[in-house]
Amino acid sequence: MFDTFSKIGVIGAGSMGSNMAMLFVENGFEVSIFDVKPANIDNLQSLFDSPESGLAKELHARVRSFKEYAPFIQSLGGKDTPKLLVFSIPHGGAADKVIADIRGWLGEGDIILDGGNEWYENAERRQRELQPHGIAYLSMGVSGGYQSARRGPSISPSGDRRALDKVMPLLERFAAKDAKTGQPCVANLGPAGCGHYVKMVHNGIEQGILGIVNEAWELLYKCLHYSLDDISGIFAKWNEDGELRRNFLVEIGAEICGRHHPNGPPSHVVNEVQDKVVQDADDSEGTGIWSVMEAAKRHVSAPTIASAHFFRIASSDRAQRLQVVENLGEDIGAARKQHLDEAARTGFVENLRLAVYCACLASFAQGLNLIARASNDEGWGVDLASCLRIWREGCIIRSEYIADLLQPVLEQERGVTNILTLKPVGEEIRRTLPHLRKVVGLAYEWNAHIPTLSASVEYFKYCAGKHLPSQFMEAELDYFGAHNYDLKSEGAGEVKKGKHHFEWKPA
Amino acid sequence: MFDTFSKIGVIGAGSMGSNMAMLFVENGFEVSIFDVKPANIDNLQSLFDSPESGLAKELHARVRSFKEYAPFIQSLGGKDTPKLLVFSIPHGGAADKVIADIRGWLGEGDIILDGGNEWYENAERRQRELQPHGIAYLSMGVSGGYQSARRGPSISPSGDRRALDKVMPLLERFAAKDAKTGQPCVANLGPAGCGHYVKMVHNGIEQGILGIVNEAWELLYKCLHYSLDDISGIFAKWNEDGELRRNFLVEIGAEICGRHHPNGPPSHVVNEVQDKVVQDADDSEGTGIWSVMEAAKRHVSAPTIASAHFFRIASSDRAQRLQVVENLGEDIGAARKQHLDEAARTGFVENLRLAVYCACLASFAQGLNLIARASNDEGWGVDLASCLRIWREGCIIRSEYIADLLQPVLEQERGVTNILTLKPVGEEIRRTLPHLRKVVGLAYEWNAHIPTLSASVEYFKYCAGKHLPSQFMEAELDYFGAHNYDLKSEGAGEVKKGKHHFEWKPA
Repeated sequence: MFDTFSKIGVIGAGSMGSNMAMLFVENGFEVSIFDVKPANIDNLQSLFDSPESGLAKELHARVRSFKEYAPFIQSLGGKDTPKLLVFSIPHGGAADKVIADIRGWLGEGDIILDGGNEWYENAERRQRELQPHGIAYLSMGVSGGYQSARRGPSISPSGDRRALDKVMPLLERFAAKDAKTGQPCVANLGPAGCGHYVKMVHNGIEQGILGIVNEAWELLYKCLHYSLDDISGIFAKWNEDGELRRNFLVEIGAEICGRHHPNGPPSHVVNEVQDKVVQDADDSEGTGIWSVMEAAKRHVSAPTIASAHFFRIASSDRAQRLQVVENLGEDIGAARKQHLDEAARTGFVENLRLAVYCACLASFAQGLNLIARASNDEGWGVDLASCLRIWREGCIIRSEYIADLLQPVLEQERGVTNILTLKPVGEEIRRTLPHLRKVVGLAYEWNAHIPTLSASVEYFKYCAGKHLPSQFMEAELDYFGAHNYDLKSEGAGEVKKGKHHFEWKPA
Repeated sequence: MFDTFSKIGVIGAGSMGSNMAMLFVENGFEVSIFDVKPANIDNLQSLFDSPESGLAKELHARVRSFKEYAPFIQSLGGKDTPKLLVFSIPHGGAADKVIADIRGWLGEGDIILDGGNEWYENAERRQRELQPHGIAYLSMGVSGGYQSARRGPSISPSGDRRALDKVMPLLERFAAKDAKTGQPCVANLGPAGCGHYVKMVHNGIEQGILGIVNEAWELLYKCLHYSLDDISGIFAKWNEDGELRRNFLVEIGAEICGRHHPNGPPSHVVNEVQDKVVQDADDSEGTGIWSVMEAAKRHVSAPTIASAHFFRIASSDRAQRLQVVENLGEDIGAARKQHLDEAARTGFVENLRLAVYCACLASFAQGLNLIARASNDEGWGVDLASCLRIWREGCIIRSEYIADLLQPVLEQERGVTNILTLKPVGEEIRRTLPHLRKVVGLAYEWNAHIPTLSASVEYFKYCAGKHLPSQFMEAELDYFGAHNYDLKSEGAGEVKKGKHHFEWKPA
């Protein structure tokens, strides 16, 4: 049904699209690239020409750029030739608009790989609409940022099996490779929109880890008053070996803290950055928001991910924050500088390293639980071990030690939904939770911001709690809502409405 | 257009519906009540006859119950008589089914008051569908549980103005009355589904407060090892005077802790209740879930509400919890018994009282922020002061001291979205946050479960934080995502993508 493709049409020439175009061309493809914004196309030439691009001169002629659809499609062989299109466009209406605009040129045998951070239901809708016409729309989560898009990203595709089989050899060539095994970080995750879903959860886990590493950074910088260059060294060491080995967000944290501004007087770039994260609040990125919404909707407890989210949302409106500070008459959130001797400082840093690791396990546990629930609800059959394999290299949540821990046991225990029930995970938590507890206790005393770290401790406490105070909460709900309850004497029981109501107060 | 109604048709004879039926009858109406489940109708007679119902014998004949729609509608005057119908049905498909089943009997001048906990978009859709036919479907949030449904609930209606004007005198008769002013706890909140939305957020705030009081209960019972009867006394005292004055969930907490089982050997009822809250996990109640989803979607930081939610979700699957406990080899969540002298214990209880209050303010702040955002997004024009007035009496988040604090200032400062920017609120937080901090610090040492209390401290810290660690997080996002940032030197700036990108690592 589908021919082998020698050309790829990329729609969207932003940082991800333009870098993927270079990756494709280096893998032997002729690439046509289009963008609705002429400025993005105008910028391409200087990007390709720059020494940083690393694009060999002789390959330049194999990328052609377009500001109009007609010649772009023509360059791919026109309406009647099966075409391979890669989308790198913002989620929602933008991708729908592109499909509507090019619909007249699409036909039997065309394959669209949507590499945007799309809401999975939009992806499913597009599949349903295009499939009857022989056009395969495939979900294709692409992670790793624009550097990975250039060198080889982590890819999570899903959709029509035959179309996906067709392009899988290509994706395996483009994808990041696991350094240990050489395996490409890509797998057919299943039908419909689950590829986009898994990428969304990847970003949810990323959100959790960003929160965790961010809180560690404040502790080192504000409380222990290490210099940024020292912190760069600490993060680099964490990244080198042990539980945070090749943890991407720790690794780039080392580079960020060590980076001095190239122009002007010596200063660290990170110190000129304003303290607000706006990408959720201005709706330019949906995945962090959707991860929290999906956790709530599918009854997955995800406090590490959600706490990190609510922190960054609150950070976005700095003007309002200053108004609240003024109204409260004090900077309630000022982390306090500590005067520890060198041994105590070093001891804390080691506790912190293991605390970061333990909290990262919480973020992974919550994200994987969410994927498992969604997969069960939707009948996708997503294999969690495949997710771990995809995440081994090229993506933002890359964390070699955690992948080494989780991938083998998930390969053995197919069908598990909660990794806290897995033996090797339990051992790691038992071993490192004391460090997380220690750090949260001290950080709390020092008034550091620890929404994510502290939520992770509470998460472990209630996930592994034999007797929760919720017996009282359930009684309150039964009092006014006649919500019923199970009796303790009835054992663990099921997750459904209890059989007993006590008439605490007759109406 | 609409006639004055002398009859009310109630659809749904569960605990809310049957108690509202008694309330209506006592207010001079003839009531017809219908349920799709014959058993619910069969139970009605014994409910009405019971001494607890308090329904005067001579009123019994004014309630007629039905298992079939035809005679039910006939009893209200039939198809061509304008009818007043009150729904008390589970959300989603159930209400749609009822509307479809009775659609043939509905006509010009009919008014449906949907008193279920409905998702606001379902309510809006029904309005749109029925309005062209002269049928008014109105949102009607009803709070306070079944006891209030019997004696006078807190009511948050919205929808077609003319229809609402028509029924408002009735709703004012039925509604709970503010003890101080005699004012009914009902107000026309605006157009479309905002009445259901406000009720949803009421339940979100409730979820936060349930978490807070629940954590206080554990501290008193498990850590300070007060007896349940002692705790009953403590809660009763809190409820009598001061910051937790007439706080509904504290008040019923006192009754719950004091309640011994009427049969068998002496024992507290609350101690036979299993520690799992299932009403979210089994989808019988949507409002807590939707509140978290809406907070994420509308960019409102709501960690108190969300943390309480994720705790109760995790509590629901006790069998899995026990599996995790076993896998981790210890009960990580066991709150530790403390041996304090009487003065320290009493001191802690007073700190705890103010901590509960301070955390309740966080829950209110988050919920009101969510209503304000949704109202702005949707153009509803909801007045936050009206919400406070409605919540003064008859509802689950009733908290007299907080209503006395918030209602006057919200009446003056119309249009405020974040109550943390209000002077009187700032003063209260400054005064009581030290107590919340103290309690969280000790509770953390004692290994009590404090997801909601600790999240509330973090919330205040980052909402009133001048310099958040998010400068590092923003730099990380810029590193791999080219997300851009604002410079510190540019001031607070806007909530939108920054103008600066640093090429931390070329692709």
